[in-house]
Amino acid sequence: MKDLKRTKIKELLDAPVIGKKVNVKGWVRTFRNNQFIAINDGSTINNIQGVVDFENTDEKLLKRITTGACISVTGDLAESKGKGQSVEIIVENIEILGDADPEKFPLQPKKHSLEFLREIAHLRVRTNTFSAIYRIRHAMIFAVHKFFTDRGFYNVHTPIITGSDAEGAGEMFRVTTLDPANPAKDEDGNINYKEDFFGKETNLTVSGQLEGETACMGLSEIYTFGPTFRAENSNTSRHLAEFWMIEPEMAFYDINDNMDLAEAFVKYLVNYALDNCSDDLAFLNQRALDDEKTKPQQERSELSLLERLKFVAENDFERVTYTEAIDILRNSKPNKKKKFQYLIEGWGADLQSEHERFLVEKHFKKPVILYNYPKDIKAFYMRQNDDGKTVAAMDVLFPGIGEIIGGSQREERYGILKQRIDEIGIPEKDLWWYLELRKFGSAPHSGFGLGFERMIQFVTGMTNIRDVIPFPRTPDNAEF
Amino acid sequence: MKDLKRTKIKELLDAPVIGKKVNVKGWVRTFRNNQFIAINDGSTINNIQGVVDFENTDEKLLKRITTGACISVTGDLAESKGKGQSVEIIVENIEILGDADPEKFPLQPKKHSLEFLREIAHLRVRTNTFSAIYRIRHAMIFAVHKFFTDRGFYNVHTPIITGSDAEGAGEMFRVTTLDPANPAKDEDGNINYKEDFFGKETNLTVSGQLEGETACMGLSEIYTFGPTFRAENSNTSRHLAEFWMIEPEMAFYDINDNMDLAEAFVKYLVNYALDNCSDDLAFLNQRALDDEKTKPQQERSELSLLERLKFVAENDFERVTYTEAIDILRNSKPNKKKKFQYLIEGWGADLQSEHERFLVEKHFKKPVILYNYPKDIKAFYMRQNDDGKTVAAMDVLFPGIGEIIGGSQREERYGILKQRIDEIGIPEKDLWWYLELRKFGSAPHSGFGLGFERMIQFVTGMTNIRDVIPFPRTPDNAEF
Repeated sequence: MKDLKRTKIKELLDAPVIGKKVNVKGWVRTFRNNQFIAINDGSTINNIQGVVDFENTDEKLLKRITTGACISVTGDLAESKGKGQSVEIIVENIEILGDADPEKFPLQPKKHSLEFLREIAHLRVRTNTFSAIYRIRHAMIFAVHKFFTDRGFYNVHTPIITGSDAEGAGEMFRVTTLDPANPAKDEDGNINYKEDFFGKETNLTVSGQLEGETACMGLSEIYTFGPTFRAENSNTSRHLAEFWMIEPEMAFYDINDNMDLAEAFVKYLVNYALDNCSDDLAFLNQRALDDEKTKPQQERSELSLLERLKFVAENDFERVTYTEAIDILRNSKPNKKKKFQYLIEGWGADLQSEHERFLVEKHFKKPVILYNYPKDIKAFYMRQNDDGKTVAAMDVLFPGIGEIIGGSQREERYGILKQRIDEIGIPEKDLWWYLELRKFGSAPHSGFGLGFERMIQFVTGMTNIRDVIPFPRTPDNAEF
Repeated sequence: MKDLKRTKIKELLDAPVIGKKVNVKGWVRTFRNNQFIAINDGSTINNIQGVVDFENTDEKLLKRITTGACISVTGDLAESKGKGQSVEIIVENIEILGDADPEKFPLQPKKHSLEFLREIAHLRVRTNTFSAIYRIRHAMIFAVHKFFTDRGFYNVHTPIITGSDAEGAGEMFRVTTLDPANPAKDEDGNINYKEDFFGKETNLTVSGQLEGETACMGLSEIYTFGPTFRAENSNTSRHLAEFWMIEPEMAFYDINDNMDLAEAFVKYLVNYALDNCSDDLAFLNQRALDDEKTKPQQERSELSLLERLKFVAENDFERVTYTEAIDILRNSKPNKKKKFQYLIEGWGADLQSEHERFLVEKHFKKPVILYNYPKDIKAFYMRQNDDGKTVAAMDVLFPGIGEIIGGSQREERYGILKQRIDEIGIPEKDLWWYLELRKFGSAPHSGFGLGFERMIQFVTGMTNIRDVIPFPRTPDNAEF
């Protein structure tokens, strides 16, 4: 018996061999009537049932089969008479690998709030909801690499610690080994960063884009996939201080090629989830439906989770210029009736999430790609259009999520880029290498960034971003 | 002509269609006799030759075809009469996308030192050596995900910023938003970390292992793949302050299962490189051979790069207990002749890299897995063996690299782990969640860590670790 190799529950359920002796190891979800153990090992959301001959089993052992205990079960696989499962294990031998005292184990078989589960992030992976989310998150990670690898892109690990703070995407975390109580100082009494580990002030990256561009100017098509950071005091359900981003950069792509790639990419991810995570998605779909029932009618979604995913996979995204969008918004009901918090009065206004949601959810009722934004509300590296006032920027807007992708064609012309950098006052010494890309063998190129957790929110239907990353980092919270 | 879609050079060379009109975009490597352009676009190490009808081409244009310039070339694909290539493009139209002034562009067609190239990390991707390394690095990234995904493992993103400093793997970088010149202080005049972004002192992670263990205790088999950090002042060819690690953690694996997985994993990576990166490996193999010719005979490797890779892929690793290794080392020639810097006198000694190299390169002449180390020289979380003095630790040692993998069976018994934590004085409040894994449904489990850059060094044959990561971070260096 000792030598019988463990089989994963997913394997058993995918291709059951009735009558075969099997060993399963996992955690007890429930134990009913001193007889039926629901065992889960994380390989699938589905449990396997172990049927215990309780009359011939030591009572002390039976008492240790509690929710959360880890057990090893051996027995023959049989067709199940119970509903909801096709096969079960007729238990011959059971071993307790690790007890879970029912008085102390916090995950009893009842509904726990997501807030409570965040406090026990080391244990929430043992619930159906979170194991489903983490399996889907894995599937999406793999799909990202597969999508780009199949297209000849190369993954580039851009630096996490950066000496360059020119990107300007947000507030940064300082990285240091200086003694905080007594830092090295120079003659003028200022902090002497020459004494810091890297000999200068360093921060955690807010984006790998600029370094990614250097790589695409030799490898043609690259992508980054790594952690990025924002030291912003935003305690919302949409913000994390530490999150993962995917940033492809492509030589020889203009803004249209860029939009084509972005749309193909997110559709691929959604289709990959539909094809490979059907059990987990079915569970999360039902979970969301149950959740909706507790809400008043007008707050419920028009589409279920699965319907939303299929809708995105099957429909072309609407491509709309910023100028067209402003026209639509200016003439919209909520603008005329002054229902928007920020009323749209004219061209040049920065769009708020209420406007994006109106366009996506009310007007077009599908994902929207907005492009050609006013240059003054966009970043210095975006390519200036011939009209002299817009840049070739694009944002992909999703229902319920808002901006999920932001990108642009990059300014490849040395003179125009240099002028823009001077205008906004970035010292050239911080960007000499970025400018050199335009001095030596420059080429039209484009890229975008996808916030990975926003994408996982969309695919899982989870409304709080803290529930789609294993250990969320937010203001005042870096537990574990 | 404008609408002809660009074809990647790799595609053209893999399946050439003679007579077809094609468009290629890329960077000029060389331009010979005003006629032959070697063009590279990073999709492969191989260039395509464009043949220019120089008599009918504007002389001003010809002058702009210089090494490093970015061009777009259109013409018919023809069989090549030149040697070293099967096909070439008979150029009909050529467009300069970006010039490269030969007086200023630093990458002229001659051999540059690796040290020089590190200073222009934003451009070195345009050399054969570095584009080959980065393509192989990508292939290895994909292979890591494929290996684990095919086996039902889930990738888990463990936190980069951590409030826990219990792992003890090395010196840490502090992450902070406190004003360095004037940090918040408490009543006693100490730094008041409650005012810092996370409400406590936080650092960059040195390992995702402990958090990874929480995930394997619900999903069974997981792996991490992310950046890790060491604030150690080591200016060597083997150390980086920022590097990537892969850390699988598996429930229900003992130390033997762990060794089996580690061996299968690195063999898979090596085989994947041999199968998928043959052009790049052939180039690096030749590069290393040329390099060796400049060295005295006794410093040359016995095996070429390709031979070393095949050797690892085809041979079982030697599994040796620490105790056996000490016996071998004690009776070895260099120990008896006092050639080791650290002489091996008895059981309990920590092994130095000279000892590991002797075992791997001289004694066994193959990769070695050392296991069952004295508990006093290993980490607190490693499982104690029944002998009372060793732990179920393992290190995989590679020729030329030394330790490439370190791992262990983890201590799953609450009482023994708690005692060990108390012995070495880690406050329980820092590890309450780690201890709880052993309170609730504990199980035997194991894991290991692979230093990704060490692996890339082995696969590419590069001797300095700064050459296998795009933007190396080392003491006094965080450029770009």
